[in-house]
Amino acid sequence: MDRDKFFMERALRLAEKGVGSTSPNPMVGAVLVKDGEIIGEGFHKKAGEPHAEVLALKQAGERARGAELFVTLEPCSHYGRTPPCVQAIIKAGVTGVVAAMEDPNPLVSGRGIKMLEEAGIQVRVGVMEERARKLNEVFIKYITTKKPFVVGKIAQSLDGKIALSSGISRWITGEPARIRAHELRSRYDAVMVGIGTVLADDPLLTCRLPGREKDPVKIVVDSTLKIPVNARLFQDSGKVIIAATQKADRQKMRVLKELGADIIETESNGGDMVNLPQLFEILGTMGITGVLVEGGSRLLASLSKEELLDKLIIFVAPRLIGAEGLSSVGNLFVDELKKTPRFTIGSLEQIGEDIMLEAYKG
Amino acid sequence: MDRDKFFMERALRLAEKGVGSTSPNPMVGAVLVKDGEIIGEGFHKKAGEPHAEVLALKQAGERARGAELFVTLEPCSHYGRTPPCVQAIIKAGVTGVVAAMEDPNPLVSGRGIKMLEEAGIQVRVGVMEERARKLNEVFIKYITTKKPFVVGKIAQSLDGKIALSSGISRWITGEPARIRAHELRSRYDAVMVGIGTVLADDPLLTCRLPGREKDPVKIVVDSTLKIPVNARLFQDSGKVIIAATQKADRQKMRVLKELGADIIETESNGGDMVNLPQLFEILGTMGITGVLVEGGSRLLASLSKEELLDKLIIFVAPRLIGAEGLSSVGNLFVDELKKTPRFTIGSLEQIGEDIMLEAYKG
Amino acid sequence: MDRDKFFMERALRLAEKGVGSTSPNPMVGAVLVKDGEIIGEGFHKKAGEPHAEVLALKQAGERARGAELFVTLEPCSHYGRTPPCVQAIIKAGVTGVVAAMEDPNPLVSGRGIKMLEEAGIQVRVGVMEERARKLNEVFIKYITTKKPFVVGKIAQSLDGKIALSSGISRWITGEPARIRAHELRSRYDAVMVGIGTVLADDPLLTCRLPGREKDPVKIVVDSTLKIPVNARLFQDSGKVIIAATQKADRQKMRVLKELGADIIETESNGGDMVNLPQLFEILGTMGITGVLVEGGSRLLASLSKEELLDKLIIFVAPRLIGAEGLSSVGNLFVDELKKTPRFTIGSLEQIGEDIMLEAYKG
Amino acid sequence: MDRDKFFMERALRLAEKGVGSTSPNPMVGAVLVKDGEIIGEGFHKKAGEPHAEVLALKQAGERARGAELFVTLEPCSHYGRTPPCVQAIIKAGVTGVVAAMEDPNPLVSGRGIKMLEEAGIQVRVGVMEERARKLNEVFIKYITTKKPFVVGKIAQSLDGKIALSSGISRWITGEPARIRAHELRSRYDAVMVGIGTVLADDPLLTCRLPGREKDPVKIVVDSTLKIPVNARLFQDSGKVIIAATQKADRQKMRVLKELGADIIETESNGGDMVNLPQLFEILGTMGITGVLVEGGSRLLASLSKEELLDKLIIFVAPRLIGAEGLSSVGNLFVDELKKTPRFTIGSLEQIGEDIMLEAYKG
Ligand SMILES: [Zn+2]
Ligand SMILES: [Zn+2]
Ligand SMILES: [Zn+2]
Ligand SMILES: [Zn+2]
Repeated sequence: MDRDKFFMERALRLAEKGVGSTSPNPMVGAVLVKDGEIIGEGFHKKAGEPHAEVLALKQAGERARGAELFVTLEPCSHYGRTPPCVQAIIKAGVTGVVAAMEDPNPLVSGRGIKMLEEAGIQVRVGVMEERARKLNEVFIKYITTKKPFVVGKIAQSLDGKIALSSGISRWITGEPARIRAHELRSRYDAVMVGIGTVLADDPLLTCRLPGREKDPVKIVVDSTLKIPVNARLFQDSGKVIIAATQKADRQKMRVLKELGADIIETESNGGDMVNLPQLFEILGTMGITGVLVEGGSRLLASLSKEELLDKLIIFVAPRLIGAEGLSSVGNLFVDELKKTPRFTIGSLEQIGEDIMLEAYKG
Repeated sequence: MDRDKFFMERALRLAEKGVGSTSPNPMVGAVLVKDGEIIGEGFHKKAGEPHAEVLALKQAGERARGAELFVTLEPCSHYGRTPPCVQAIIKAGVTGVVAAMEDPNPLVSGRGIKMLEEAGIQVRVGVMEERARKLNEVFIKYITTKKPFVVGKIAQSLDGKIALSSGISRWITGEPARIRAHELRSRYDAVMVGIGTVLADDPLLTCRLPGREKDPVKIVVDSTLKIPVNARLFQDSGKVIIAATQKADRQKMRVLKELGADIIETESNGGDMVNLPQLFEILGTMGITGVLVEGGSRLLASLSKEELLDKLIIFVAPRLIGAEGLSSVGNLFVDELKKTPRFTIGSLEQIGEDIMLEAYKG
Repeated sequence: MDRDKFFMERALRLAEKGVGSTSPNPMVGAVLVKDGEIIGEGFHKKAGEPHAEVLALKQAGERARGAELFVTLEPCSHYGRTPPCVQAIIKAGVTGVVAAMEDPNPLVSGRGIKMLEEAGIQVRVGVMEERARKLNEVFIKYITTKKPFVVGKIAQSLDGKIALSSGISRWITGEPARIRAHELRSRYDAVMVGIGTVLADDPLLTCRLPGREKDPVKIVVDSTLKIPVNARLFQDSGKVIIAATQKADRQKMRVLKELGADIIETESNGGDMVNLPQLFEILGTMGITGVLVEGGSRLLASLSKEELLDKLIIFVAPRLIGAEGLSSVGNLFVDELKKTPRFTIGSLEQIGEDIMLEAYKG
Repeated sequence: MDRDKFFMERALRLAEKGVGSTSPNPMVGAVLVKDGEIIGEGFHKKAGEPHAEVLALKQAGERARGAELFVTLEPCSHYGRTPPCVQAIIKAGVTGVVAAMEDPNPLVSGRGIKMLEEAGIQVRVGVMEERARKLNEVFIKYITTKKPFVVGKIAQSLDGKIALSSGISRWITGEPARIRAHELRSRYDAVMVGIGTVLADDPLLTCRLPGREKDPVKIVVDSTLKIPVNARLFQDSGKVIIAATQKADRQKMRVLKELGADIIETESNGGDMVNLPQLFEILGTMGITGVLVEGGSRLLASLSKEELLDKLIIFVAPRLIGAEGLSSVGNLFVDELKKTPRFTIGSLEQIGEDIMLEAYKG
């Protein structure tokens, strides 16, 4: 058992190297073991490039015969952009497969395992499954619901404020927390803000990490298209999507499209607001698997009311701002404590002088 | 070095057994070691009862000759309610003393060490000093300033709210956090609330722990004596102190005194408020070494503005309440982020489903 | 779930307070919770004294009605020295019981739970079960097999030596490790050594801990009664048992009995050795639940060959002694690596400058 | 302070990426921070390639002006294969430098810091110094003594045996431990064994890690050149050095040279043994900075007697072999416990089902 954990942990650490670049595919790592040696290792780098298992098999070459494969996800059984890994594993003469979890895709789940077993390969599933599920939480949500995994990000004071009453918010948290927050952007396909945040802070929403190329799509929820044409997020590279209602001004829409922005029109949500559930369905059909919502407080409140927040990542600076400051989440209009949106603490960590906590819905 | 840590950790764990009952004395633990055996152990239980060192020496008896003493605080050198430990240590023939820290009392600090050294005993100071200082943070503040150590306690949601807009606050946090919060009361000489909290929640402010006898003094900050005579905190045992201004109604004052309450009158603080720095000075002269402030948000804000909060203990429940809820700290009227009150994270822990964090001033 | 863990951890910590004094009973802790308060707590101190559940119920009094009980072991359902706890729990009006584990006694296991459920009480079992099982590993072995739990203790160098070739072994490990080793004695009903160790080291085998009264029974495995009548272990208080073969000298036997020793005669084990499996069966019938074997290397080897070692506790000092030193375990005469006795690491810890590791059979 | 640790930890993690390939240079990582962003990162990959600082500056480009540099080692001030980093840092307009430690090279230590300070740059030294020193323990030993850092590696049973009495040692430890042991080879310039190990096990001594190219030099201590010409370590790529005495057979020496081996002749060490201190001096002059000694027990004993072992890495399998097995370290002929070679535990870890411990000399 401890032996299993040793190799699976290694496979998981390999898988993590693909963070931020495998979408819409999951992160996968594979380790091939034989006679007290690791004879092959691999991880999935990018959609279209070889799967982790194939890379590990290739490295091992002929020695793969009789080896044991540790892989963080059930090997694929279907022809995608690459031939199925199951076939390659069988062909290579691997005699045992240990997978951290089954394929979460309901259409194929368990099929790879079955094919391996039918080929006489010993298969065990479930080693370090919890960690494997957390690693691919975005992928799992997307593949099972076709809707993106939604993460709300907040940087607040001990008393839950994200700005002074004057609106000043630079900087509540310290440099380490801001860097960590920044890096989060590279983990999701899209970054989302409300129009209020664009008008107040005029953010770039880029990722600007040394050595990272990919920028997330920038999404602005802007029901009536108030976004200024000279907003900084147009200046930088990276696709911009603006979510508006069908009532939005057609003329402004044209101008924004000329600036390169895509416009998603949703029905209005009762009042004048964007229909958020519909928006995320559309984003799902566009292949966006995960969205990092960076504010503001009103958008986060709306998402919470619609039960769309899968996860919160909150950076807490050890300072007080006072009741007159801007609350991190807007009005929720709940009249009983037991009806308030509940989360479960996922992790708790000190980042420089601040705290970072992750909480999951429910 | 690791040997030192082993024995000092043991002495610190002994000292902790006195938590909540040694005031105004510090918690102290002592371990007497000889030839690979612990020949005596002790901790200070209560003012007036023997010091830790004396208990350890007594247990060892004749065997103490040639032993090494590990003690969490510099042994006392002056006659108090008990004769000085330094004398007992010398007389017993102890040949080495390792202390976690010097006596923080500026009047006697270092004197015990000097006397031990003059008697030919080898003395080392500073082993696990940081932990020893945290253990006696209340005592150290009090002995060096004559003012109590002030701890603000908050139970809030992720977004910093302590109640719904309707005032409902039962219960934001879960049972484990509430029990932990409850137990805090037994660690301090006094529990303090603002009059708003009394009017809204009518709390008992007792400790009600099985096996714990001592109840903290209950202090209500109530500048104009609005406290109802049938408030529940009068019904239970335990001394009540009401802090008012000199303008408070004399008649009501008499009634409250008849109920057994002590009244502290401070100058009014500019407006109609109690002068908090003056109040804590008076509490210090009364021998109150530590105060746990349980709310409400306005009192916490006033304490923060006066820079009187030495520590915050915040329980955070993983739920959202929304901007319309009651903020945990009242208005602070700060116009620049760098002027907002800063704290330093001291600890971070999960308690049941909630979080507990400790933060220290500055 | 986290709430369960919070209260069960508390109950487990209470239970641990009974360490070394509850035999032949298990250690048990109980916590009674109601409306965010702990209204009763208790642990079992000693056979014949009240059970943990009863103490907690007593502390709570009338308030126990409607409370939830967390207890580290299934409550007892049978009349022993005290009336069954199940009855007291039902009578007190407790509405929920959470137990860490079922009673391991095969005769009564599950009966308490059934009776509680039949009385309409909600019962959950298995919270922190692994820790509860480790806590009572001695009791569990004894109650299920009627034989004592056997722990081999070794203090060795990095290269597995317990003495120089000259026999010098004072001291391989440092004071912290020796103190820890010493304290182990108070956890078991008996301490055992081979006659070689008595002849070489003439140990006292007492517990000599400040504040601890109980001394374990001292057992010497001495097939031919070579023990000197002036051995130090006769001088101290504490019962002495000498295990010999039926061939042992009758005259010497009488002398030893006059010194107060009990003699256990076993068949000889093929050669001239004590039949160890038989010895432990007899010790079991005498009510000895756990035995700490402190050496020497030959006795440990014999125990290992007979598969009688349930656990090893090894203190390793970071020094080298060299091949000519005395090996910690005698000859085992195994001719294949896969036949060598296997253990599983249970814990790993630094004690002062040394290491302590626990390993379990199999 | 916590901010410093955050960035330095990042720099240390970057530095570690160079493990096994920077020799004779140290591993170095650098992080360039400005306005809450990491604008450049780098680590030293290989002697001759750019230094970490230069890579970080290059990535930042113009933005480096006004930035703060975190680096795991004092920047170099002298012209080597690359121009001095100090010059590049000054030229780039960096305004602050935080270094984990000074350059350990006594010839240049402190010079880089001085030059930076003279250029008006704020310099702080000592952040996470302990970890930085451990990271470069090999380099530090070598640069200050010109002799390699010597690590003894052992795989043994709980009772300190490395083989059955028959010599069988395959496999005492499990696959994870063996893989970890294997990977150690890639961290040192050379792997060393005694001739006994070659004759008994005929090892390859290669590194055989997927994705790793570099093989360590193989050194056999073989005073009288008993090594068979068909030993497996000749078959594989990788340089072989044989350490013999000047008395060794000239004819065999020629044959071995023809096989591609280098022969180091030392004076004989009193008897017929290789003079080990002299051998390591020679290896130092050859630019070998670190040596992993993989056995056998006699070579380890000789190294220990000569006080040449800087570190031990011991894998312990939870099994017993018995006194008749082969001891991990040969005879040391010490007659007092206080004269036995002492080490200090550096780390303690479970690897699969086995334990790994690191211990440092002294
Ligand atoms: Zn695949
Ligand atoms: Zn004293
Ligand atoms: Zn009972
Ligand atoms: Zn350089």
